[in-house]
Formats: sequence, structure tokens, C-alpha cells
Amino acid sequence: MANNIFSSLPEELDAELFTELLREQNIRIERIVSQGHASPASGWYDQEDNEWVLVLEGAGTILFADGRKTTLKTGDFLHIPAREKHKVAWTDPDRQTVWLAVHYPASS
Amino acid sequence: MANNIFSSLPEELDAELFTELLREQNIRIERIVSQGHASPASGWYDQEDNEWVLVLEGAGTILFADGRKTTLKTGDFLHIPAREKHKVAWTDPDRQTVWLAVHYPASS
Repeated sequence: MANNIFSSLPEELDAELFTELLREQNIRIERIVSQGHASPASGWYDQEDNEWVLVLEGAGTILFADGRKTTLKTGDFLHIPAREKHKVAWTDPDRQTVWLAVHYPASS
Repeated sequence: MANNIFSSLPEELDAELFTELLREQNIRIERIVSQGHASPASGWYDQEDNEWVLVLEGAGTILFADGRKTTLKTGDFLHIPAREKHKVAWTDPDRQTVWLAVHYPASS
């Protein structure tokens, strides 16, 4: 009945891997796997939804448009309000970083 | 800016520990820490909300009223629809089990 979030991790990652775990009208839960990936140098994520993110394994750095920067390691979680521009500045190149992201409407 | 989900784990657990990490109108995320705890022998959880649960550490068994039973270990996740009666039948007595639970309305 249960699935495992660490199953079917790819051996090689050319690009970040996004896997949807749950999608309902007002919620979307996804797993993101990164290894050394970062957002493009120009541009920001500017999301309509709120996002609650938790690092399950590995480490990654989130940079905000206002200059704040925070590195998340295993077990660290962060709330990113809708429209708060951000990007992934760095992820550990030596191992896979597994993120859990919960997206939900800003209006809720 | 970030908090860690494994921080402030209690040394001793007399009862299960529920910690709310996020509460908005249509979503509630909580951490649950168990060690050898189980639900009372009689009665079931009969929740108005859907629940998506992920074991971050440890192991626990969920029993459903229709007799299904599933043991979740680190990384295992499960969706429990609203009104699906269930209980925690067992959690590892030798170490702490850390659950992440995401609750959201059945109507969504």
C-alpha cells in the first residue's frame, strides 16, 4: 500500500527530476531530486502557490531575490510564500539531494 | 530561516508528541514522534480531513478498520482518505519514529 520516497532514484541525473506524489485541487506534493543542479543564472521562480519544502537527504542552497540565502541540510524545512522570488543557487554535487515540496494555494 | 525537523526531539516520550509545523486555512503540517506508542485498543481515528503521511525515521504499523495493515519504514508514505478509519497498531519501541503528516480538506 505504501510507496517509498527513496525508491526509483536515478543512477545519473542529467537534469533535476520532479515526481508528483499527490495532486488534489488545493494541494500538490512532489519529490525533487538534484545533484549539483542549480537554477539558471538569470530569472527567478515566481510562484502563484505557497511552497513548504523539506530536505530529506543531501543539501541545497536557496537564494531569494532580496539577497537572503539559506542552505538546507537533511531535515531542514522552509516556507516560501507565493510570489517570493527565489532560486536554487547550489545543490551538493557529490550526492543526490532529495526534496519534499508541498504546494498549496496562497488564498488558503 | 530554516528549522530542522529532527531538532528538539525529546529524550523521553511518555506520550506521542505532536508538533504543528504549518497551519493555514486548507492545510496543516505536523510532526509526530512516537516510541512504542500505539492507539488505544478500542476506537479508531475517523478524520474529516485527508492525510498524507511520511515516515522520516523509525517504523510504525497502521491498521485499517477493514483489516488491512501496513508497516511503514523510513521513506515510506501513504495516503489516508478522510473517513477511512485507522489506528496506529505499533511503533518501534527501541527508537523514536518521526512522522510527517499533511492534513488537507476532503473537499479539495
